[in-house]
Amino acid sequence: MTDPTNPSFDLAHLGHVEMLTDRFDESLDFFTRVYGLCLSGQDETSAYLRAWDDYEYHTLKLTRAGTTGVGYIGYRAASPEALERRVKAIEASGTKTHGWTKGDPGHGPAFRFEDSFGHVFEIYWQTRRPELADADKPALKNLASRYHARGACPRRIDHVNLLSDDVAEFRRFMETCLGSRVTEYIQLDNGRLGGCWFTVNNKTYDLACTEEHGRGLGRLHHVTYATDTREDILRAADIFLENGVHIETGPHKHAIQGTFFLYVWEPAGNRVELANAGARLILAPDWEPVCWTEADRRKGQAWGLKTIDTFQTHGTPPVKKQEA
Amino acid sequence: MTDPTNPSFDLAHLGHVEMLTDRFDESLDFFTRVYGLCLSGQDETSAYLRAWDDYEYHTLKLTRAGTTGVGYIGYRAASPEALERRVKAIEASGTKTHGWTKGDPGHGPAFRFEDSFGHVFEIYWQTRRPELADADKPALKNLASRYHARGACPRRIDHVNLLSDDVAEFRRFMETCLGSRVTEYIQLDNGRLGGCWFTVNNKTYDLACTEEHGRGLGRLHHVTYATDTREDILRAADIFLENGVHIETGPHKHAIQGTFFLYVWEPAGNRVELANAGARLILAPDWEPVCWTEADRRKGQAWGLKTIDTFQTHGTPPVKKQEA
Amino acid sequence: MTDPTNPSFDLAHLGHVEMLTDRFDESLDFFTRVYGLCLSGQDETSAYLRAWDDYEYHTLKLTRAGTTGVGYIGYRAASPEALERRVKAIEASGTKTHGWTKGDPGHGPAFRFEDSFGHVFEIYWQTRRPELADADKPALKNLASRYHARGACPRRIDHVNLLSDDVAEFRRFMETCLGSRVTEYIQLDNGRLGGCWFTVNNKTYDLACTEEHGRGLGRLHHVTYATDTREDILRAADIFLENGVHIETGPHKHAIQGTFFLYVWEPAGNRVELANAGARLILAPDWEPVCWTEADRRKGQAWGLKTIDTFQTHGTPPVKKQEA
Amino acid sequence: MTDPTNPSFDLAHLGHVEMLTDRFDESLDFFTRVYGLCLSGQDETSAYLRAWDDYEYHTLKLTRAGTTGVGYIGYRAASPEALERRVKAIEASGTKTHGWTKGDPGHGPAFRFEDSFGHVFEIYWQTRRPELADADKPALKNLASRYHARGACPRRIDHVNLLSDDVAEFRRFMETCLGSRVTEYIQLDNGRLGGCWFTVNNKTYDLACTEEHGRGLGRLHHVTYATDTREDILRAADIFLENGVHIETGPHKHAIQGTFFLYVWEPAGNRVELANAGARLILAPDWEPVCWTEADRRKGQAWGLKTIDTFQTHGTPPVKKQEA
Repeated sequence: MTDPTNPSFDLAHLGHVEMLTDRFDESLDFFTRVYGLCLSGQDETSAYLRAWDDYEYHTLKLTRAGTTGVGYIGYRAASPEALERRVKAIEASGTKTHGWTKGDPGHGPAFRFEDSFGHVFEIYWQTRRPELADADKPALKNLASRYHARGACPRRIDHVNLLSDDVAEFRRFMETCLGSRVTEYIQLDNGRLGGCWFTVNNKTYDLACTEEHGRGLGRLHHVTYATDTREDILRAADIFLENGVHIETGPHKHAIQGTFFLYVWEPAGNRVELANAGARLILAPDWEPVCWTEADRRKGQAWGLKTIDTFQTHGTPPVKKQEA
Repeated sequence: MTDPTNPSFDLAHLGHVEMLTDRFDESLDFFTRVYGLCLSGQDETSAYLRAWDDYEYHTLKLTRAGTTGVGYIGYRAASPEALERRVKAIEASGTKTHGWTKGDPGHGPAFRFEDSFGHVFEIYWQTRRPELADADKPALKNLASRYHARGACPRRIDHVNLLSDDVAEFRRFMETCLGSRVTEYIQLDNGRLGGCWFTVNNKTYDLACTEEHGRGLGRLHHVTYATDTREDILRAADIFLENGVHIETGPHKHAIQGTFFLYVWEPAGNRVELANAGARLILAPDWEPVCWTEADRRKGQAWGLKTIDTFQTHGTPPVKKQEA
Repeated sequence: MTDPTNPSFDLAHLGHVEMLTDRFDESLDFFTRVYGLCLSGQDETSAYLRAWDDYEYHTLKLTRAGTTGVGYIGYRAASPEALERRVKAIEASGTKTHGWTKGDPGHGPAFRFEDSFGHVFEIYWQTRRPELADADKPALKNLASRYHARGACPRRIDHVNLLSDDVAEFRRFMETCLGSRVTEYIQLDNGRLGGCWFTVNNKTYDLACTEEHGRGLGRLHHVTYATDTREDILRAADIFLENGVHIETGPHKHAIQGTFFLYVWEPAGNRVELANAGARLILAPDWEPVCWTEADRRKGQAWGLKTIDTFQTHGTPPVKKQEA
Repeated sequence: MTDPTNPSFDLAHLGHVEMLTDRFDESLDFFTRVYGLCLSGQDETSAYLRAWDDYEYHTLKLTRAGTTGVGYIGYRAASPEALERRVKAIEASGTKTHGWTKGDPGHGPAFRFEDSFGHVFEIYWQTRRPELADADKPALKNLASRYHARGACPRRIDHVNLLSDDVAEFRRFMETCLGSRVTEYIQLDNGRLGGCWFTVNNKTYDLACTEEHGRGLGRLHHVTYATDTREDILRAADIFLENGVHIETGPHKHAIQGTFFLYVWEPAGNRVELANAGARLILAPDWEPVCWTEADRRKGQAWGLKTIDTFQTHGTPPVKKQEA
């Protein structure tokens, strides 16, 4: 952070995640009615969803597909110039690139590239804000949309968690291509990185990568939206219960990052989380990444909850041999 | 934000506020036992306090004085180079400067300067982290200190609110000298700015300035720490009640910035706040400042609470003719 | 409570309140969509509503009328024998009685009687439980209905607050006819009772009576449902805000009874409250009623909020000369 | 409940539990500093503790002993006459009785009796209220003591959970001797009762009995205090974590009774719980006990948490062969 040309401010924030579903109608019903996102629009292949205080047209692009998992992950740049700088840095890094797309209903031209594990990223500057019908206009003018109070009703997109065979390699990718900084990580006894949490801004993380145990490629562990309070998450647990949604684990508090969490599986099997970080932010410019050892991890989550087995194995798309 | 040389990333965050008190012992008792800050150290004139998850040695410097109000406000730079850039920008701006101090127990050399209303600021890079006694070490290694659960127990410093006769002039100062951006403001019917909310990072604000109605100079409206939850604030209200602390207004939710708030007066009369912003952040690099008119303001706070009279008049130090 | 024939256990709990509205459709929309009650059934004149964990068919009977206010208030007896005992006690007391009704869709035969101010009460034993469609069945079998998460979504009816010219006379009525005990009261400097809080069970109160300042007869101050948490009430405040509901005062905590409260006006003008008492119950069989003086009351609510003017004047139906 | 001579109103509420500890000083430190009870007094053998809003001198009698577990359980009668009626009913039932004690620092004469498993009970009418030092007087006169905000700081005693080899027999004891009613129970596939929840008032339960799997006699499963909010429990989890207290399971929500819970072991090994029932009460005089089958139980707690092994085996005093 001491280099004035340091690229770490080039990307402003995580913009959106494309999630694939082979049960599109059920997934869309889940995300709108139960999870509580807003539908900004829909085309033949995708629904464009946002949380009520997300300022962009969409933060979740839900796409009909023959399988599940993540399509691509988008970050918004801090400026047109910052976008250019990032593209140059990515091209210079030897990373596999897909070149420019013309964007989609939610944003303008985006530059696509890919990590070594098959996850596709895109970065863009031009964005679109949702046009609000009168019924969607908020009472308070500093909100992106009306607080609709439907379903779990999170406030904004928070982060995405990917799986990779080689977290150290993924870390290099994130630092080089996105200019992300590492805030916390898991150091395994065998010397490997077990997981790594990244951010491009003051959020404690906007992307995490944990070790792939299923030999899958380009897999998704989960996508997360943030609620204002922990009570929102306790309430959401009742909503999921009453709607027959599979609650995998939680509510509880993570030791790593200290977020209060709840994990469920949407109808197609993609894991989605609700999380609350309280007032925790990474404000220190010289934040020292926090190292968690296997010994630390054996204590369980913050209040002792043991990690559930499926949390180590279930990702999307599923891997045949791994999961029953 | 579209200029790659834009200085807005030069300052990382609000670092500390020096608060003056003419009832030092009572104020210190309040801040440690009731408000729930940690005492990092003390010298002849000042106590150095921090919230349990503040990473720096102090975020509140409580200083014995013949009066109340704010001594100075410190911001930490994003890097040594960023600090230099800021100093150059401040010097080039014609702002009144005090030059370099050698720092204090909590940080290294600081460059001081002053707005047109008598508020002194300082910026610095070198900082000091608190040395933790075993009893103060947190169970979770990603926390700055142990969650001590004493008093209101906020997590971190949040912001400071100053008073000025000319908010537009103050805005120019903040943009020029600190590279802050404006997130929300009050536009009075008479054409003046009634208040302005500033940030140097993703927090919705770290400094606010509202119009001085008391003809005072360099006055403080309040200093605020952030809690993790709104429930922390409701609980704090009971703590203040049981400890005979003057609760001025709240708990309620601000329309501007949407923060859940509670204002009390510490024993010497300085106003202090506890606030919770939920998951609200300013992530958009092209955030359009939100304008609040007098008509908006007549609706009261978010849920209709009318602003209490003293909120318009009481600042520190007190102004003789203004207050009974 | 030391007399084994003491009637105080004869009534089990507040059963229902009939509320009159001259804007039936708007009121019904408010109570179902915004306030979050369930519609058990409807006939030509009335809608029968319940909270999701109310075990009876209805706890609010919303009735089309040319005015607003309360129709009658129903209490369920503890047994058929207890009902008989109560009827005898009422008849012996010289209270104005209306005799037996055959009940309505929500319950069996009810005995009606009236206080000196025109408020009608009824007591009954036979009740009806709502028949649940599959979609309304709860996931957990100890709940009366599914937690539907729609609107403010309170758990159960809590209490009703009436107005009367002579609270001492009303107190005699409640003790004699309902066997209620007084848990808290306001003692005015002029020697009159300013308000009185009553209960027939371990709830801190199920009915309150405060002094009528508007020369009205048989007026209603408000009807209240209970939420599980204070956070439910903060969330409800946002729901009311976004739905254009008039928030009169709150959220805040009452000094008297210590309940966290929020008052709004439903579309026809009847005041409705959401309240949370935390874990507070009246378990002591020899509870000494708590006396609040005018000096106490001048301190405002628990955290200092001053009582809003309309709270002293607005009741339903409105009184012409009293309200602008 | 339809019999006017029904004894179910004879006992007003659970009064106190005597807990044995073989680490008295550590246990006392835990209960006062960490769990947040108030010390009303102490004699050679016992400390008398209460929650801040308990109205009696003590609700927990912590007694030095060579082992752990429960000494006796006290219920307060609804009146002197009710106490006499209960004594007669107990004597008539053939239950083992210990006769009258002269009481202890917290209450007057008590009649003692014993279930078939070695748990001793006492019932009493005369009680003592704590004398409050000025520093302990509450700001609001309807509270039993000042809200001290120390440690987890629950509001009042809630319930006790015992273990027994024959829950059906224990149920007969509770119905006959205490006049309790059953609100929920577990029906095992083998025809036995697996657990039973009892109440003498409108609380959903004040005593539970679950099946003893350790061949112990007169064992305690846990003692519980109630908090006002679920957030209090989440906060308590952090307090326990920072104080090195063993968190056994939770926070989570029970399916049975729907209480939000957190279980920890105090230093001597007795299990203690914090619980919050929200606004849930048993108000129906003809409440039908809720039956939970083994099939129901396999779904885990309300949000799916599996019951931890120690919850089935750990009781106090420990049983040698059962626990490692």
